[in-house]
Amino acid sequence: MTTDTPAPRHAEQRVADTLHRLRTDVDLWVATADTAGTPYLVPLSFLWDGDSILLSTTAASPTARNLVASGRARIALGATRDVVLVDADVEVSDTVPGEVGDAFAAATGFDPRAEPQDYLWFRARLRTVQAWREANELAGRTLLRDGSWLTHP
Amino acid sequence: MTTDTPAPRHAEQRVADTLHRLRTDVDLWVATADTAGTPYLVPLSFLWDGDSILLSTTAASPTARNLVASGRARIALGATRDVVLVDADVEVSDTVPGEVGDAFAAATGFDPRAEPQDYLWFRARLRTVQAWREANELAGRTLLRDGSWLTHP
Repeated sequence: MTTDTPAPRHAEQRVADTLHRLRTDVDLWVATADTAGTPYLVPLSFLWDGDSILLSTTAASPTARNLVASGRARIALGATRDVVLVDADVEVSDTVPGEVGDAFAAATGFDPRAEPQDYLWFRARLRTVQAWREANELAGRTLLRDGSWLTHP
Repeated sequence: MTTDTPAPRHAEQRVADTLHRLRTDVDLWVATADTAGTPYLVPLSFLWDGDSILLSTTAASPTARNLVASGRARIALGATRDVVLVDADVEVSDTVPGEVGDAFAAATGFDPRAEPQDYLWFRARLRTVQAWREANELAGRTLLRDGSWLTHP
């Protein structure tokens, strides 16, 4: 933390900034692990529907296999000095309703339904959300716990 | 991939860009997992010594506990559309030589030795390195395998 670090944001601002990022960012980082505890991490595009994060990747990928086996992801949005970190419970499905697939393709510029490989869809439901920029924002970083926003957005 | 996506970089350029990032970036993403397969992910500052990535975090943190238990990390540098991804074998130590600690503090602006909590040091040795920007760079993304650069830097 340098002397020109801005003052820490209040909870309301952090929630607003976090929701803005969920609505407008295109990519995020998805960390998963296999049952032996080997970590995996890749960037993926996503769609935020106001409640959960929709992802899609090839059924054969390590991320898909890990999510099918564990149902757990840790997701990061933003940059290392302006981070949103999400622990999520993940549901898998083979297909999504047509309008959901269309919305995903519009948001990401990528339509898994048009790809030759088998893709799976993953709906990541927020279990915890934390957001901070510099060290002076580590206090108060938890914004959502057990699926509920601690400050109402 | 839009029509204005640049042509894919050659292996030599990707290695040069990757080494530049390792030398000049301050932060990266560290994914780990516990023995039950629960993923964890945080941003951390690092020092590149030309051969391995040096990290430090509190002994009580999930990242430290996971690294002590598993010795495995997956590390990302850069942004989701200009990514360097590293699978690493990680060695843990309580201390580092004084000049190494000094170099870490100079590179990161943060000196774990001055902190009141117990910090551990983690030396991440590269097992695989991949780098890509857009989808047209997925082919040829592996730059280092089994600890050896496939194109000599």
